[in-house]
Amino acid sequence: MENELISTEQLVQLIETKNVKEIRRIFEVVPTIDIAEAIDDIEDVKQIVFIFKTVKSEYTADLFAELHPDTKEKLIAAMSDSELADIIESQFTDDLVDDIEDLPANLVYRVLKNVSKERRATINRLLNYKENTAGSIMTTEFLVLLDTLSVDEAIAQIRKVGKTKETIYTLFIIDKRRNLVGTLDLDDLIFAKGDEILSDLMNRDFVTVNINTDQEEVANLIKRYDLNAIAVLNNEDRLVGIITVDDIIDVIEQEATEDVAALSHVTPLEDSYLDTSPFSMAKKCVPWIIILLILGTFTTMVLDKLQDQAVFTMVPILIAFVPTLMDTGGNAGGQTIALMIRGLATKEFTPRDFLKVILKEVLTALIVSSVILVFSFLWFTMEQYTGIVGLNINDPTGPAMTIWNKQCWSMDFFAHAVKVSATVSITLFAASFIAKFVAVCLPLGVAALKKDPAIVAQPLLTTIVDVLALISYLGIATIAFTLI
Amino acid sequence: MENELISTEQLVQLIETKNVKEIRRIFEVVPTIDIAEAIDDIEDVKQIVFIFKTVKSEYTADLFAELHPDTKEKLIAAMSDSELADIIESQFTDDLVDDIEDLPANLVYRVLKNVSKERRATINRLLNYKENTAGSIMTTEFLVLLDTLSVDEAIAQIRKVGKTKETIYTLFIIDKRRNLVGTLDLDDLIFAKGDEILSDLMNRDFVTVNINTDQEEVANLIKRYDLNAIAVLNNEDRLVGIITVDDIIDVIEQEATEDVAALSHVTPLEDSYLDTSPFSMAKKCVPWIIILLILGTFTTMVLDKLQDQAVFTMVPILIAFVPTLMDTGGNAGGQTIALMIRGLATKEFTPRDFLKVILKEVLTALIVSSVILVFSFLWFTMEQYTGIVGLNINDPTGPAMTIWNKQCWSMDFFAHAVKVSATVSITLFAASFIAKFVAVCLPLGVAALKKDPAIVAQPLLTTIVDVLALISYLGIATIAFTLI
Repeated sequence: MENELISTEQLVQLIETKNVKEIRRIFEVVPTIDIAEAIDDIEDVKQIVFIFKTVKSEYTADLFAELHPDTKEKLIAAMSDSELADIIESQFTDDLVDDIEDLPANLVYRVLKNVSKERRATINRLLNYKENTAGSIMTTEFLVLLDTLSVDEAIAQIRKVGKTKETIYTLFIIDKRRNLVGTLDLDDLIFAKGDEILSDLMNRDFVTVNINTDQEEVANLIKRYDLNAIAVLNNEDRLVGIITVDDIIDVIEQEATEDVAALSHVTPLEDSYLDTSPFSMAKKCVPWIIILLILGTFTTMVLDKLQDQAVFTMVPILIAFVPTLMDTGGNAGGQTIALMIRGLATKEFTPRDFLKVILKEVLTALIVSSVILVFSFLWFTMEQYTGIVGLNINDPTGPAMTIWNKQCWSMDFFAHAVKVSATVSITLFAASFIAKFVAVCLPLGVAALKKDPAIVAQPLLTTIVDVLALISYLGIATIAFTLI
Repeated sequence: MENELISTEQLVQLIETKNVKEIRRIFEVVPTIDIAEAIDDIEDVKQIVFIFKTVKSEYTADLFAELHPDTKEKLIAAMSDSELADIIESQFTDDLVDDIEDLPANLVYRVLKNVSKERRATINRLLNYKENTAGSIMTTEFLVLLDTLSVDEAIAQIRKVGKTKETIYTLFIIDKRRNLVGTLDLDDLIFAKGDEILSDLMNRDFVTVNINTDQEEVANLIKRYDLNAIAVLNNEDRLVGIITVDDIIDVIEQEATEDVAALSHVTPLEDSYLDTSPFSMAKKCVPWIIILLILGTFTTMVLDKLQDQAVFTMVPILIAFVPTLMDTGGNAGGQTIALMIRGLATKEFTPRDFLKVILKEVLTALIVSSVILVFSFLWFTMEQYTGIVGLNINDPTGPAMTIWNKQCWSMDFFAHAVKVSATVSITLFAASFIAKFVAVCLPLGVAALKKDPAIVAQPLLTTIVDVLALISYLGIATIAFTLI
């Protein structure tokens, strides 16, 4: 890294000594985001206003955009109308809309008072798009060029108006009725001869999205077609905005964080982690815990009935394996559900691949469950012989008979230990197979119904698998200990 | 969407009827990735070779890059040396290296035979960079310009050599000793006057990475500084490659998928989901299940000892709540661990924010656990009064006394039910508080030791929380039923 670092203390000292020259130099050599983070920690808003008055206007636009929402709020309240108008003028409309969504009402009023009438209309329109749609993340500062322009004319026009646009790397080409007819990458324009006509150069195989397209779908298209920017059309197929690749990076991270959150039973945070209060955090956690607690009632019911069954009072050691049974079932299912949900999210497959996916998972489940069966049989037998769990064939609640005291070298003990191990490991086989099977069907089914598979599938999985595992356990134990 | 669609059947028919004109037209109007996917399903490799001979060379480079690895393999085996050399010549070196890593040895030999000596050296160097480092994902086709050039000279040079470079949107500026001294965005070049000198225009506040920098760190820098491309320096601080934003999108998705996988106890797949065989899938699942099964032994041990304790034989209903206890503890901890791991991954905080994070989580844990305490107390009492779990104060294993048969309207029943509810819900309070506390300390500690928190933290959490919850349960139950 070549760039210098700047701390809040250094910055405050420069402001207090009014060292204008050094402040301006810092903006030349330190990335704006790093300066913005140092400014976020300055307590006196007057000092921040001083910076905005001091540095060149080419930096203030970026600087304002990079500040923390709380700093922006302080600053908007402290600036004069004319200072505010200058800053607002320099912001991209999509950033401004994001800011407005964070501001208290009186400051929203101050911002809207200081924008032009046309822009106010655009802002109001953008504020009305539903969250997570293309409309809500698009920017309205894009460059359109007429398809009849020559390359030289196009470059001249870009030089004239390009600076105010979010990107000039993808150019949107329209015909004279203002319909979008093509896109052109800036590099193709640079490589072309000066007298070539745009309509001969442009790509006609471009993709577009609608204002209501889900942002995850937009991200997948930008990724798939390796785009720098994608056109957003309204319901009349008019070009109304663009979405650039850097907006999409945030979408991809956000969607991934939502997947992780849903799989871990917590509602995704709205603000950044450090800005979220413990009370808001609790609000994201509590509903899930309560839902799962209520769903857990089924497990409690089944286990309560199980306990009273003859076979479990006869062989109480079996109860000690219940958590292992449920954890392993839950783990086996959780693996599959994680692969399903990321596969669906990154479009590695769609619900239409149902049969292929289900066949693959059934085979995988068979292999995994068989390995578990063999391993757990040996492991559980070892546990009984070493006294890790207390098996005593003469007195079920008595001290464990172990290899150390040679009490367990009888055929009776062997037969009993093998029966216990077989019961638990066959149930484990069944539980992990069922878990993986349910875990592949649930998300595919939920996705086919156009619901978010991450949120719905996981809580249901645990309950279904727990209950089925316990019922299988009873059946298998009854066969092993009363019928054989 | 404006673009046409093409199916494998249509394509095969066009090839069989040798409809060259229509095939060429399709490449003009359909995005290459869509055509590539249709070609992937063509069985006869000779038909694929026919397409490569038919379409313009400006499309074949992209087309080859977008094909499935298996199709590439077939194609490389079927092409003549001269055809292969043409295709290889047109590929970016980073893509070629990825291909080589997927190919069997005899085809690697064919590829390397058909590249120039210098390029072979570059490929060998790239193949040696460690996985997931900047060196392993960088491309060596970047554009450098001397800092003494004028804007017009620079544009002329870009026009001459730019086509062969991965991006011209970020230009890397070197001095005459070939040290990287600045970067310049293409748009700033376009907006500048023809006679301005690059050293006056370039950004001096650029960031760089080393060949050994982790790809996740590279992604975070590109995101933070909103870059189109970042320079990669070797250990002598020479510019050896660049990484572009579209490579980073894959890194971000991959890292997210790894977080999801680790939290769900499965090793991330190496190939795409549909390309992974059930046997390989099982290999990603089995080791985790076995490790968790072994860790679960501690839980089995503790529960086995617990069962024999006087208080649990006296009040067997308590055993029925064990799964709820463990599930809730696991869920409460899982929520926190998910927030921790995504927060660390997206750099919302670092292990240095330890105190801030731990304070926030302790407060959150207190709120969440208190709500759980109150709700679960009421819910468990309801469960006993309605007979969802069978409480019978005269005969512990007898049928449940419920509000329906009015057997339970005695102070004795009330006192007993309240004791059961209080025992379970106070344990739940303790378990969820402990779980959240362990869940915040574990990932921060593991991250501070520079290990991946997602992989290490989750399995340990479950075991620690299960064992602590069961021990608390015994303590609280003993106090409630034998001391009070």
